[in-house]
Amino acid sequence: MVKWGAALVAACIAGAAQAQPITLERFGSFHVGGRQVELSDRPVREYLPTVGSAPLRIDPNGVHMVGQMYARFMVPAPQRGTAPLMLWHGAYLTGVTWETTPDGRPGWDEFFLRRGWATYVTDAVERGRSGAAMVPDIYAPPLHLPAQNPWERFRIGTGAGSYATRQVLPGNQFPTAPEHYEAFMRQVVARYLGTDSDVIAAYIALLERVGPSVVIAHSQGGAFAWQVAQRRPDLFRALVLIEPAGTGAVAEAAKLKDVPQLLVYGDYVDQDPRWSVIRRNARAFAAAIQAAGGTVEDVDLPSRGIPGNSHMLMMDRNSDQVAALVQDWLAAKGLWR
Amino acid sequence: MVKWGAALVAACIAGAAQAQPITLERFGSFHVGGRQVELSDRPVREYLPTVGSAPLRIDPNGVHMVGQMYARFMVPAPQRGTAPLMLWHGAYLTGVTWETTPDGRPGWDEFFLRRGWATYVTDAVERGRSGAAMVPDIYAPPLHLPAQNPWERFRIGTGAGSYATRQVLPGNQFPTAPEHYEAFMRQVVARYLGTDSDVIAAYIALLERVGPSVVIAHSQGGAFAWQVAQRRPDLFRALVLIEPAGTGAVAEAAKLKDVPQLLVYGDYVDQDPRWSVIRRNARAFAAAIQAAGGTVEDVDLPSRGIPGNSHMLMMDRNSDQVAALVQDWLAAKGLWR
Repeated sequence: MVKWGAALVAACIAGAAQAQPITLERFGSFHVGGRQVELSDRPVREYLPTVGSAPLRIDPNGVHMVGQMYARFMVPAPQRGTAPLMLWHGAYLTGVTWETTPDGRPGWDEFFLRRGWATYVTDAVERGRSGAAMVPDIYAPPLHLPAQNPWERFRIGTGAGSYATRQVLPGNQFPTAPEHYEAFMRQVVARYLGTDSDVIAAYIALLERVGPSVVIAHSQGGAFAWQVAQRRPDLFRALVLIEPAGTGAVAEAAKLKDVPQLLVYGDYVDQDPRWSVIRRNARAFAAAIQAAGGTVEDVDLPSRGIPGNSHMLMMDRNSDQVAALVQDWLAAKGLWR
Repeated sequence: MVKWGAALVAACIAGAAQAQPITLERFGSFHVGGRQVELSDRPVREYLPTVGSAPLRIDPNGVHMVGQMYARFMVPAPQRGTAPLMLWHGAYLTGVTWETTPDGRPGWDEFFLRRGWATYVTDAVERGRSGAAMVPDIYAPPLHLPAQNPWERFRIGTGAGSYATRQVLPGNQFPTAPEHYEAFMRQVVARYLGTDSDVIAAYIALLERVGPSVVIAHSQGGAFAWQVAQRRPDLFRALVLIEPAGTGAVAEAAKLKDVPQLLVYGDYVDQDPRWSVIRRNARAFAAAIQAAGGTVEDVDLPSRGIPGNSHMLMMDRNSDQVAALVQDWLAAKGLWR
């Protein structure tokens, strides 16, 4: 009997590590926003698509749909979040940021879904399933990142030149095994410049369609979230800024006074010449919001006893620990029951 | 009592139209495949990303990851399919093809998931979340479709010039209300030429990771599926070709003799100068497979009493009816229990 009991306990422990089934009330995807641009006098292209096909003539002249945005949603049953939860990614990335980690663990999308939040994962305008526009006719040529760029810039390695030697910041939580870093690089996409007004318009269209939401935004997505919230604070129940890479307009900080905000940065910020400037700007912006009567809770993870986080917090080995900190804050704000 | 009974019946009918909750054993996403390309001597670009950020210097020289492919999967509980079910989209599109219809109904992904299939939806290499490579350094400049192109080419309108007048083929099943056609155009993305070997390698990597599968492939995806199956027939439990836009190599048709195949085209094919050629080539390829001892069931939907289908069968108003025909064929082949 004792032996059987021990086996049962062992099975339960193994079972806890294994993900449990999840019931969805509904799920799906859609595109929102966008505008029409008409092109003329462009050359026609002709080609044979493949073996067994027939020649194809593509005339690019006419109306192009530009600036739309893709969103995928999953609504769990039962729901415990009191508002939809949006996950907005950063530059050179797509919604995949939230779906999985480079070492194959579930991402924040699944973390929050399993806690009863209806989650919405988007691809920012011009990236991923949102689709980009013709270059150079509508958008300027995009930029692409080679492998050393995130390694040296996202506080994974020890800065410029560290990719060549694969030198990692001490105690860094990012999965840096060669196969994991390569998995991360597979998620990286091009980024177009000059598209900010399209991106902001599409995020507003998304929130208008879904309704007032909790928005968790990362890096470039954080800067967009602040700028969107200044235009439509009524559409934000709360705003969680994960390492925002920019701010809103300081002169209009008061527009954010009624949106509860959480600001989170990871480790190695002060010693990084670029991230130290970015966080200083973000804290100055937060101070302006607070001076106007708003609430921005500023979390420095190492000071909370959570060291080693790179810029990609939601992919780091302790990603669930950081997500739990966000979850606890949302619950404390009364947004989860 | 009678009144109350009638209300109950009405409620039940309304309830039947409403989707029921669904339980997933697991879900997630990953990237597969890809290769590394090294660039050198390219110019560095510098810009200020946004308000409150710090200047950013992007040096494109170094190793780029190219040719990887994104896949998202959902595994229902209980499972009734005896193999994973893959959904491969066509040219100028992404996996969104299978997720939703332009008029907002559930797509084939949900149709098959609700019947107990573990579904895998991919974005072909260079499209959507798979990410494209630098132009013109690695890939040649892509092509983009203006609004009239699918209308006139996908057997929605009455051919060349029909978009201007919005003339629709009689009895056409595609959702052509202005807001629905615009929703479809939001899903359209660029397509790069010269990437076939990357695409084929990534599909093989996908099947090697997931295991032998049922593959449902549309248009360009159908041509790829035939070409992938000729290289690795061991990885296909069955192959459903929805309006394939090309074929495999006729000389190697015998390689497909052990893969059960279903070939489906919609309406208006014979009267279309391009699709009539494409179907003739597909049927000649099917005949070569059959001559080698293989099985290709050739379905002309109008002959089966299902008229009005455009090239985008999975988005047409009767998309569930066509999906049911595929489901019945898979069940008859013993692939569903």
